[in-house]
Amino acid sequence: MTQNILTPSALLGLPPYPANAYAPLADRFKALLKTKNDVVFVQAEAIVALEASAASLGRQGMVALNIVTSPYGKYYGEWLRRAGAEVHDLLADEGRPIRISAVIEVMAGLPQLDLVAVVHAETSTGILNPLEAIASEVHKRKALLVVDAVASMGGHELDVDALEIDLCVIGPQKALGGPAGLSIASVSQRSWAAMVHVDKPSPSTLNLLDLKTGWLDKGRGAVPGMPSAQEFWAAEAALQRIEQEGLAAVIKRHRLAANATRSGLEALGVNVWVKNEGKASTLASTFQLPTNVDAQAIIDNATAHGAVVLPAHGSPGARLLRIDHTGARANFAPALANVVGVGIALQSLGIDVKIGAAAEAFSRAFAAG
Amino acid sequence: MTQNILTPSALLGLPPYPANAYAPLADRFKALLKTKNDVVFVQAEAIVALEASAASLGRQGMVALNIVTSPYGKYYGEWLRRAGAEVHDLLADEGRPIRISAVIEVMAGLPQLDLVAVVHAETSTGILNPLEAIASEVHKRKALLVVDAVASMGGHELDVDALEIDLCVIGPQKALGGPAGLSIASVSQRSWAAMVHVDKPSPSTLNLLDLKTGWLDKGRGAVPGMPSAQEFWAAEAALQRIEQEGLAAVIKRHRLAANATRSGLEALGVNVWVKNEGKASTLASTFQLPTNVDAQAIIDNATAHGAVVLPAHGSPGARLLRIDHTGARANFAPALANVVGVGIALQSLGIDVKIGAAAEAFSRAFAAG
Amino acid sequence: MTQNILTPSALLGLPPYPANAYAPLADRFKALLKTKNDVVFVQAEAIVALEASAASLGRQGMVALNIVTSPYGKYYGEWLRRAGAEVHDLLADEGRPIRISAVIEVMAGLPQLDLVAVVHAETSTGILNPLEAIASEVHKRKALLVVDAVASMGGHELDVDALEIDLCVIGPQKALGGPAGLSIASVSQRSWAAMVHVDKPSPSTLNLLDLKTGWLDKGRGAVPGMPSAQEFWAAEAALQRIEQEGLAAVIKRHRLAANATRSGLEALGVNVWVKNEGKASTLASTFQLPTNVDAQAIIDNATAHGAVVLPAHGSPGARLLRIDHTGARANFAPALANVVGVGIALQSLGIDVKIGAAAEAFSRAFAAG
Amino acid sequence: MTQNILTPSALLGLPPYPANAYAPLADRFKALLKTKNDVVFVQAEAIVALEASAASLGRQGMVALNIVTSPYGKYYGEWLRRAGAEVHDLLADEGRPIRISAVIEVMAGLPQLDLVAVVHAETSTGILNPLEAIASEVHKRKALLVVDAVASMGGHELDVDALEIDLCVIGPQKALGGPAGLSIASVSQRSWAAMVHVDKPSPSTLNLLDLKTGWLDKGRGAVPGMPSAQEFWAAEAALQRIEQEGLAAVIKRHRLAANATRSGLEALGVNVWVKNEGKASTLASTFQLPTNVDAQAIIDNATAHGAVVLPAHGSPGARLLRIDHTGARANFAPALANVVGVGIALQSLGIDVKIGAAAEAFSRAFAAG
Repeated sequence: MTQNILTPSALLGLPPYPANAYAPLADRFKALLKTKNDVVFVQAEAIVALEASAASLGRQGMVALNIVTSPYGKYYGEWLRRAGAEVHDLLADEGRPIRISAVIEVMAGLPQLDLVAVVHAETSTGILNPLEAIASEVHKRKALLVVDAVASMGGHELDVDALEIDLCVIGPQKALGGPAGLSIASVSQRSWAAMVHVDKPSPSTLNLLDLKTGWLDKGRGAVPGMPSAQEFWAAEAALQRIEQEGLAAVIKRHRLAANATRSGLEALGVNVWVKNEGKASTLASTFQLPTNVDAQAIIDNATAHGAVVLPAHGSPGARLLRIDHTGARANFAPALANVVGVGIALQSLGIDVKIGAAAEAFSRAFAAG
Repeated sequence: MTQNILTPSALLGLPPYPANAYAPLADRFKALLKTKNDVVFVQAEAIVALEASAASLGRQGMVALNIVTSPYGKYYGEWLRRAGAEVHDLLADEGRPIRISAVIEVMAGLPQLDLVAVVHAETSTGILNPLEAIASEVHKRKALLVVDAVASMGGHELDVDALEIDLCVIGPQKALGGPAGLSIASVSQRSWAAMVHVDKPSPSTLNLLDLKTGWLDKGRGAVPGMPSAQEFWAAEAALQRIEQEGLAAVIKRHRLAANATRSGLEALGVNVWVKNEGKASTLASTFQLPTNVDAQAIIDNATAHGAVVLPAHGSPGARLLRIDHTGARANFAPALANVVGVGIALQSLGIDVKIGAAAEAFSRAFAAG
Repeated sequence: MTQNILTPSALLGLPPYPANAYAPLADRFKALLKTKNDVVFVQAEAIVALEASAASLGRQGMVALNIVTSPYGKYYGEWLRRAGAEVHDLLADEGRPIRISAVIEVMAGLPQLDLVAVVHAETSTGILNPLEAIASEVHKRKALLVVDAVASMGGHELDVDALEIDLCVIGPQKALGGPAGLSIASVSQRSWAAMVHVDKPSPSTLNLLDLKTGWLDKGRGAVPGMPSAQEFWAAEAALQRIEQEGLAAVIKRHRLAANATRSGLEALGVNVWVKNEGKASTLASTFQLPTNVDAQAIIDNATAHGAVVLPAHGSPGARLLRIDHTGARANFAPALANVVGVGIALQSLGIDVKIGAAAEAFSRAFAAG
Repeated sequence: MTQNILTPSALLGLPPYPANAYAPLADRFKALLKTKNDVVFVQAEAIVALEASAASLGRQGMVALNIVTSPYGKYYGEWLRRAGAEVHDLLADEGRPIRISAVIEVMAGLPQLDLVAVVHAETSTGILNPLEAIASEVHKRKALLVVDAVASMGGHELDVDALEIDLCVIGPQKALGGPAGLSIASVSQRSWAAMVHVDKPSPSTLNLLDLKTGWLDKGRGAVPGMPSAQEFWAAEAALQRIEQEGLAAVIKRHRLAANATRSGLEALGVNVWVKNEGKASTLASTFQLPTNVDAQAIIDNATAHGAVVLPAHGSPGARLLRIDHTGARANFAPALANVVGVGIALQSLGIDVKIGAAAEAFSRAFAAG
């Protein structure tokens, strides 16, 4: 019987990631992030690195402004609060980027301001926050700037040093097409200095300082603990691929897919949620479900036609669906299938949409480059 | 330096394919082919198995009818001739399936007939030959029936025993989505008996009988020579995937992609070469280039939009381009990108084609199932 | 130039782990652990699951006994303390298993006892703690029993339900030969009940209850957050391999490698640290460095001869080196190379050791089964 | 149920090997072979390339000397004969290298001599033929020199241009650790010229000239036919690894493993078949079975202890067993397990062998470098 002959799995039997490979790997992420700050690895998905950044930076006596454009943003404020900080949450309109005027206004009302946290782009709603303008305001107040760039890295320009970002978290799993069980944080000297209040006799997943004392200060050899060969080799392979394509080309490919998708959706006849390129993420596009339409039926039918469509968490009232054009999906064939697949799904429920016009608009936008 | 840290390759370090796995693997191919005949492995691409079948079956005094619907068909006649046979080539109209009436007519003119060779489907021109009718005629004459089913396996129904095919060659690399360096032949007892004239003191790649004496007659353990672990493990993985999906579903998926592609191309406004489903291969579709259009420019532009388009060898006069919807490409997203990508390419050269109508027709055909 | 042609990496482009695969995967880990308790996944290395268990179970008013046989054990006490518990650390003799008499004695001095934490086996020193006897004492006091079985799973018998373990953490990366970025915890109903004091409006990596509310209570579909396809597919592949070999055979293979290693080391003439099979881990063996010998020179030379030798953290005074015979290394060739490689390394520094006698003793022990 | 969730196979879904990658790949093999001759790929195991070389070079009126040191050597003479040549087989003593004096003597008796064929090293018996001396004699006669270097490539120095080898066949599957379904031939201009007599209107697997007209003369783009992505990507990965290690280091590693193995076997007390380093292959070692010993019992028992031991085809009278230390097995741990595993197997049948002495001698030889 053949059932006990197993095809050998390429995922097992990997050699350990070499001790002398971690530092060069970190340096390649520094280059992607355009930073001279330290870069450290957190061996878990990016939300762990984010929680750790809040737990490590937050302290009694700190006043923080937390810009909230999705549920994850709410968590960040909560994590800072647990660490003892006084946190002011600033909520954007549902499913919309924060307005810079709102940021300026709330900052003006805070005599003390030690830290500002913001998400660069949100895949859940497909929005892009005005990071440059926010950074400029934050620096006027000399507060620490913490940026969640997990969903924007590879899809948007990001220059950590030009924006003087003190702590920036990314992951290889979105536009970079890499694994999800590893995250990367760039940490400025100001950030490290802000963490020294932490009094921890034993290590903790949530203490970023452990990575400084356990890895950076020891010369960046093997990372402490038990590294996952799968994650590090996959991250290296993803980096190699990105470097070969070129980060600028990766970003352009995402922008192209995003523009073609939104052009296609508009021609299809659905209500695109974020139309302005400057306010929209390149990794996902969202549109509003027509009333009285079953979201799950749309998702199932579109999926059967090669689309990747998901409920857009973060703005339930707006009834948004989210279309994924990230990583390998930021290419002609999958992005076109997204738009046409959604069209077929809507038609199958009796909604009058224009698949032909959508395909033409998509093609025109894509061919325009 | 990181340049000397190599990502470990999953393609190296495979364990040898186990000696006791070859027989079950062969039996699974028997099931796909619906045959009780012997099934043997030829460790090379399918053209080697085909040449070997001609070299092994051909002999002085044999009269053969060779049905030619592509350049490969011409080779088969030549291989039989080299082996000593008297070969009558029957050529179809350029780029078209053979007409059964032509087969009947030429057979009527041959008082002796020992072997008939035919290709089931041709990817180069996208045609399907009337195998069932041919088989019926061949059996009336009690001749050996040799079928090249490399391009039809997985895309069309094929029942080796119902059609009493004496020698059938397939490969895992097309609709089955497997490797190209291994081919599979089913061989009837009549075929083995016809080969015994071969007098070979040493083994030869072109002598199928070596596989009988060296493998079948020894109990089907390890195949003789040095098996490629890459090919056998990949073939097993491909089989596993096909069995999980179900051969009928695989065939249906190819038929759906083919129908949608041809509907899309017609709506686009190009001249589809083989329209009739019963005469068309499900693995590839062909269309005629408009006059004065540069084929390579079309190919390059369509490729940039996710299409897989190739020159259709086999009918240069007809100026055909071939669209590939085989294996993983027999799915909504890649097949749609084929059609729309070709549309964009034609438009870019000033040809007036209807991308929107094509996308609509494609979607309708696909959704119709 | 070929340098810009990249071999495609098998570690990228994996399909997402299917939503309906998590529950069966968890059930297979339940079977390995011999438990009917809930099993949950923590997407990080096992130390994160351990810290989370302490953070989730620990509380004000809790009295805990923490059995310390390595630095990791110390951390556990600290994590419980941070969560508010009163923790009594019970330290074993350096590099030795805890004595059950010491456990009984210290328990007798604690009028209140809510939780006992212990590591089953320690790879750092190669010891095995008397888990069965400890469990028996703990149950007399109706305290919660928390077991770190990361290093014993697959190397020693472990029956979670027979031992009534309330919270047991394992990882696939040791004897199971799987990935390190995923850990698995079995959690009893008593443990879940003990966690409800945790008041957390937002999720936290360190709150195991999130896995109950976010995954178990929702029917065990896709795990919350962004699962790593690399980790889950690798864990599944490792499980498949373990199930095919049989857990009992895996354990036996580790025991055989351990016995042969220790027999070989004794015949070599070095001081084996833990000789008694009942007190020794099967995953690693430790021996004392002769005085005046440079540990790193031994490690480097032995490594060059195929051995895997590491400093044995956890008992610096004893100057131990640790030999790894875990997972794929729990086989004849790598385990023999360990012993002979260490012999060559010692000889190269002028230490008189008996390589021939070691190879003979190793072989005899291995052949004895 | 989990049985219908398949771990994705890294062996499927590979991108086609890029058309512009074949030429650089060939050039890297040229560098390994130290030749400026053309290098072509035969998409099948090396025996096919060998048969093709005989079928392509052989012709009526040719006089060939075929040096036979294994069954494969006999086949080569037969293939030349089929092609029409007059072939003189020169057989070495059973299981021994050819003596150069025998070559000189037989050549002296041949007034016409057009081609000499020889195998560089034989894994079946572990011997190395005196290639340099043979080449020198062949060149005096201006005959074509054909060398089967499949088993010597990577294990022995080989300089195709210094030795003026006209046709040299290698495969990546032995010392290079690559796939077995691809072979590589270097072909001199004299060889191409010698092939033009072949009159072939259609292609044949056995006609190397097809590779000249179909690939070399067309600018070395995509190879003709249907290339196996598995084989070419695996060959590239193997080359990359070899180049990183350095061919000289690879050869040294094989020599070290061979010397240590033979030292170990002698100390074990068995009769090593080829003792002289200059006459022995570095890829395999052979020893004579003691009388009245069951070869299969030895093989089974040694295999259970990590050895790779096989019957040595080619000299049945000598009752040889062959020990494999090729590729990844040319390292300390597997080579030591070979020797000790054989020792355990012999002991288990009551043969008095010295495992300890063998391990010591092996270690000494290995450490000596």
